[in-house]
Amino acid sequence: MRPSGRKTDQMRKVSFERNFSKHAEGSCLVKFGDTHVLCTASLEEKTPPWLRNSGKGWVTAEYGMLPRATGDRMKREAASGKQGGRTQEIQRLIGRSLRAIVDLGALGERQITIDCDVIQADGGTRTASITGAWIALYDCLKWMEARNMVKVEKVLKDHVAAISCGIFANQPVIDLDYLEDSSAETDANFVMTGTGAIVEVQGTAEGVPFSEEEFLTLMRLARNGIGELVNLQKQAIL
Amino acid sequence: MRPSGRKTDQMRKVSFERNFSKHAEGSCLVKFGDTHVLCTASLEEKTPPWLRNSGKGWVTAEYGMLPRATGDRMKREAASGKQGGRTQEIQRLIGRSLRAIVDLGALGERQITIDCDVIQADGGTRTASITGAWIALYDCLKWMEARNMVKVEKVLKDHVAAISCGIFANQPVIDLDYLEDSSAETDANFVMTGTGAIVEVQGTAEGVPFSEEEFLTLMRLARNGIGELVNLQKQAIL
Amino acid sequence: MRPSGRKTDQMRKVSFERNFSKHAEGSCLVKFGDTHVLCTASLEEKTPPWLRNSGKGWVTAEYGMLPRATGDRMKREAASGKQGGRTQEIQRLIGRSLRAIVDLGALGERQITIDCDVIQADGGTRTASITGAWIALYDCLKWMEARNMVKVEKVLKDHVAAISCGIFANQPVIDLDYLEDSSAETDANFVMTGTGAIVEVQGTAEGVPFSEEEFLTLMRLARNGIGELVNLQKQAIL
Amino acid sequence: MRPSGRKTDQMRKVSFERNFSKHAEGSCLVKFGDTHVLCTASLEEKTPPWLRNSGKGWVTAEYGMLPRATGDRMKREAASGKQGGRTQEIQRLIGRSLRAIVDLGALGERQITIDCDVIQADGGTRTASITGAWIALYDCLKWMEARNMVKVEKVLKDHVAAISCGIFANQPVIDLDYLEDSSAETDANFVMTGTGAIVEVQGTAEGVPFSEEEFLTLMRLARNGIGELVNLQKQAIL
Amino acid sequence: MRPSGRKTDQMRKVSFERNFSKHAEGSCLVKFGDTHVLCTASLEEKTPPWLRNSGKGWVTAEYGMLPRATGDRMKREAASGKQGGRTQEIQRLIGRSLRAIVDLGALGERQITIDCDVIQADGGTRTASITGAWIALYDCLKWMEARNMVKVEKVLKDHVAAISCGIFANQPVIDLDYLEDSSAETDANFVMTGTGAIVEVQGTAEGVPFSEEEFLTLMRLARNGIGELVNLQKQAIL
Amino acid sequence: MRPSGRKTDQMRKVSFERNFSKHAEGSCLVKFGDTHVLCTASLEEKTPPWLRNSGKGWVTAEYGMLPRATGDRMKREAASGKQGGRTQEIQRLIGRSLRAIVDLGALGERQITIDCDVIQADGGTRTASITGAWIALYDCLKWMEARNMVKVEKVLKDHVAAISCGIFANQPVIDLDYLEDSSAETDANFVMTGTGAIVEVQGTAEGVPFSEEEFLTLMRLARNGIGELVNLQKQAIL
Repeated sequence: MRPSGRKTDQMRKVSFERNFSKHAEGSCLVKFGDTHVLCTASLEEKTPPWLRNSGKGWVTAEYGMLPRATGDRMKREAASGKQGGRTQEIQRLIGRSLRAIVDLGALGERQITIDCDVIQADGGTRTASITGAWIALYDCLKWMEARNMVKVEKVLKDHVAAISCGIFANQPVIDLDYLEDSSAETDANFVMTGTGAIVEVQGTAEGVPFSEEEFLTLMRLARNGIGELVNLQKQAIL
Repeated sequence: MRPSGRKTDQMRKVSFERNFSKHAEGSCLVKFGDTHVLCTASLEEKTPPWLRNSGKGWVTAEYGMLPRATGDRMKREAASGKQGGRTQEIQRLIGRSLRAIVDLGALGERQITIDCDVIQADGGTRTASITGAWIALYDCLKWMEARNMVKVEKVLKDHVAAISCGIFANQPVIDLDYLEDSSAETDANFVMTGTGAIVEVQGTAEGVPFSEEEFLTLMRLARNGIGELVNLQKQAIL
Repeated sequence: MRPSGRKTDQMRKVSFERNFSKHAEGSCLVKFGDTHVLCTASLEEKTPPWLRNSGKGWVTAEYGMLPRATGDRMKREAASGKQGGRTQEIQRLIGRSLRAIVDLGALGERQITIDCDVIQADGGTRTASITGAWIALYDCLKWMEARNMVKVEKVLKDHVAAISCGIFANQPVIDLDYLEDSSAETDANFVMTGTGAIVEVQGTAEGVPFSEEEFLTLMRLARNGIGELVNLQKQAIL
Repeated sequence: MRPSGRKTDQMRKVSFERNFSKHAEGSCLVKFGDTHVLCTASLEEKTPPWLRNSGKGWVTAEYGMLPRATGDRMKREAASGKQGGRTQEIQRLIGRSLRAIVDLGALGERQITIDCDVIQADGGTRTASITGAWIALYDCLKWMEARNMVKVEKVLKDHVAAISCGIFANQPVIDLDYLEDSSAETDANFVMTGTGAIVEVQGTAEGVPFSEEEFLTLMRLARNGIGELVNLQKQAIL
Repeated sequence: MRPSGRKTDQMRKVSFERNFSKHAEGSCLVKFGDTHVLCTASLEEKTPPWLRNSGKGWVTAEYGMLPRATGDRMKREAASGKQGGRTQEIQRLIGRSLRAIVDLGALGERQITIDCDVIQADGGTRTASITGAWIALYDCLKWMEARNMVKVEKVLKDHVAAISCGIFANQPVIDLDYLEDSSAETDANFVMTGTGAIVEVQGTAEGVPFSEEEFLTLMRLARNGIGELVNLQKQAIL
Repeated sequence: MRPSGRKTDQMRKVSFERNFSKHAEGSCLVKFGDTHVLCTASLEEKTPPWLRNSGKGWVTAEYGMLPRATGDRMKREAASGKQGGRTQEIQRLIGRSLRAIVDLGALGERQITIDCDVIQADGGTRTASITGAWIALYDCLKWMEARNMVKVEKVLKDHVAAISCGIFANQPVIDLDYLEDSSAETDANFVMTGTGAIVEVQGTAEGVPFSEEEFLTLMRLARNGIGELVNLQKQAIL
């Protein structure tokens, strides 16, 4: 029995609020239940130094949490003077996930930075971030298309979305909330495209190691969930 | 003529959304037009070192801006490794403003941290922060009162709210938005209590110095505006 | 009764020692009683990046305190690895105050950095800094004039000086020393030009909020004091 | 055809040099071909703050690369003033991998820090680190057992080892060297125990997303390779 | 011929201004010609952690330069966020030099911090710092003796002073000023006690290596100069 | 009697292992007994900014210690976010020592960075570093000569090597190991060329100051030891 009463293969209610931000070229407030992440896409007409004169652009991501997004207030990273290891891990993951479905050559020598800022956290902030970031990126590209800068379909090769699965109370479950996450034996994050290809898989057993079978069960759960998320993305951009 | 079409003594639409955050002891999303700030109050059962065994508590504030809260994306302070001078100035101001209307002895040896995070910026983020922070603080104290920790009326001696005024296109105007702020000759921020006493006054002329008369006109505008803000706070907590 | 025996409208003895430093283009050791600040002006033939090719120059300031300028030794900011919020607030204030009376176009694409280093502190370090910085800036411009780089009268539009006022033991007093400052109910800093226009006003009540009347009394005291300071500046540069 | 001439399922020559360091309680120079990592285990009779009085100990890891371990010299992290995101990701992974096979209660309130310093890099530094770290940890526990502090078999529940697999030139291959790693379409790291359970799985497609089938092929390759590595560990500690 | 017209064995005019600082327990403005250093001694009733309950105290030093102490303005170390290698080298040298003539047991569990801040630089700032620091330390111990905390003669075992010597234009010279220092082939700093014993010797050839004979000549020059400095210290404390 | 049983003028066994690193243009693992330092030379086709268009190159050094190179684990400098004063002192010393025997004009506008990383420490890490760095530098220049970039004999004017001497148990001894170093009354490091000229002398008495005679005895010991080291360098590059 899950604390939320959800079924093992039932994700939380997911919603996307597009154009949440007045200033950004693309933006989306994504909610996975009580996990709320604001994703904004910012376009700059320049690339990182290592891509200059390559004809290619770049997509990168930054991740942050408001200090009281969590149950106990966390120290503000700007005040402690550095981003923690977890923050860096997550923002690198978001960036890689988006680049896997973008044609950087078709983007041209520009950089799009996706900021994923967690307004409220209840588990699954990285998977919500990736899933919402796709919407912000899509809207940014639409904004660019309206200005004849790119063709969206040339740049954006596919959808990308992410979900966590884990073994909680001996049951494989999808989309862990904080209560589940903090006591799960195993925790895996899956990032997949709209066509079901895998972009990232991260499975971790801080407690008891898990079997290949268990892992495959989690991957099956994830595949279904991500299919649903991609459908929700499609509806959101209609 | 103001860019927004507002009258010189007309503030933007102000709203407070209480209990915006699931986790915080008090929270409020305050909007001054397109300036949106999330204020959360976090209670800790400890004081800063210099107040230990003094019987007194502390109220402090931290301030941040999401990188794309503004028209152009700003570098994330956590990534650059330090809080800028402007950030520090503002969070010190918010903290002083709140402490001016709190009885720290009646609070007891506890610390309340108010985080003011700007979700979207359009001028006046510091004044919106102070005005919304009061609501978050009030709700935090109510939360404590419900647990017999304090009496709200003993700790919270008054309201506090803030507004900016400036001289724009040779006219004294209230509650400058970004367009006005970036071309105003003079910019002043006023923080006052519910009884009209002054907590902070900051008047700055980066361009042409201003006269005492002009300053007094701005103060009169501010006094009226803050009176309105205090009324809105009162309605919000009904 | 003030601890120093001064009358309520009596400033401490103020002196300027020009050319204190062998190397700087302009320099001044300013004393407000036991508060001693060394102000040096350093000229560089370059501007900050955002002014390149604008035809305009820049005037900026940095502020520091020797670790034992104060009653108790303070941690050296270079050793703790960052400048505190108070330091940044003060150096931004000094810079704005000077820029208010400088024609940056007439300066040309150059930067003058005013360093204000507190050798000994006894309250009022920021107001002494501003007042002495004007002398260092003046001498730097004279140095430049002697080399046909600028006309002083074109660049330097006016004097600027600063003084603190506060309510101490229920009395409005001018030029608070450390003893007064640390127990004053209200503390305000005023920066004004030679013609009496206001450049900066900062009034703060960390304790009890103050009334508009009280504030106006402080402003009147400040106006007289700053008039005296400007006269002393004029004598110093004869 | 692999650049090194290896077969697709052939790992590089792996060796362990125990007691490489005079001072450490346990140490091992592990080589995966031209990738050489020095792993040292340091015992301290204290735990991190969050475990005090819990009866439990902690195992953690730090990772570093000598500046010229790589083809081009990299900036020294101590000189740039922070550990990069990649470094933090890897050291967190090593720590989790080891904790998965340690009984922290049987360790008692002590901390063992495993330092993995890359002396020479040619791909696969994180997998070599984990595999060598197990030896250093084992020797540290033996050192403790000799002093009647713990029973090795109580603390160390299993072996742990790691290997990378990837798709290079359309072929699934094991143990990628630098040349392969830098042009592989897909790269996955597997951490498994001596009994074949999974501790960590990290699959990444910065280029083209991969299919579940491809992933399962990589996992099969890894399972065999890790089996061999565990055998080599067993021989090394005979 | 030296640029200053001094003879090869002639030091610059040296002076000590005691009690320069109102707040410090001991202070001295030391001048070696145009090199001016403010040395303050600050007493704290605590020791560094590694001396707690040892019955011993500690003497340490910090060193800094005002940004425009030099011909070209240097970046403020507090602003760049760290102390440079040169600064650290010098402050470690000052601390060691003083500890060599202090009985830390007789001092008791207290720490004296000597701050040496260069107000104006013209070569030899480290040797002036050490020589002036001794005066500040002496006065601090006198201040303590007046409060029956220590006996000066028990704590302070000897004088300590320092001078630089170098080979300039093929001539061994004493007490190099900036002009000499920046073009000397060899530069050596000597720290000696009142009885002529050596505390520190640092000889450096960034250009042409030097012979033992040359080095001995420099040491002889230094011995005489330090003898004079010690005499000047004795007169200063009469 | 020395703890190691060595005679007073007997150095530890010294060895050089050239080409230790696969990637570096020159490299050497130098051992002074149980002190092992890996020295690598990295060539870059650019100079520091202050040498651009000067026709001159630069040789610089960085120094680091693996955290468990020592008896107790030391905090990793990359993790603490800065290099300590000791590290900076040593790397500046290594750089100066090498530059003293290099013709920077003959090198051309290039930079060679020597990294000295202590794999295991037992006293004398800085002297081993300098002595081994010469080999790495030599091999880097040989590598360049093979590519017709420089003539080794034009760039490398002489050998350079270093040794520590000290007074241990009232006896002047050479090449102190950790046990001797930590209880020596006096400690001096000497850097000399192949022709016996002095590059650096650093003598320090943290305990009792020493006499000129004692210092000269140490220098004599050092001269002999460095003669031996230079012979060993010559054999190593045969």
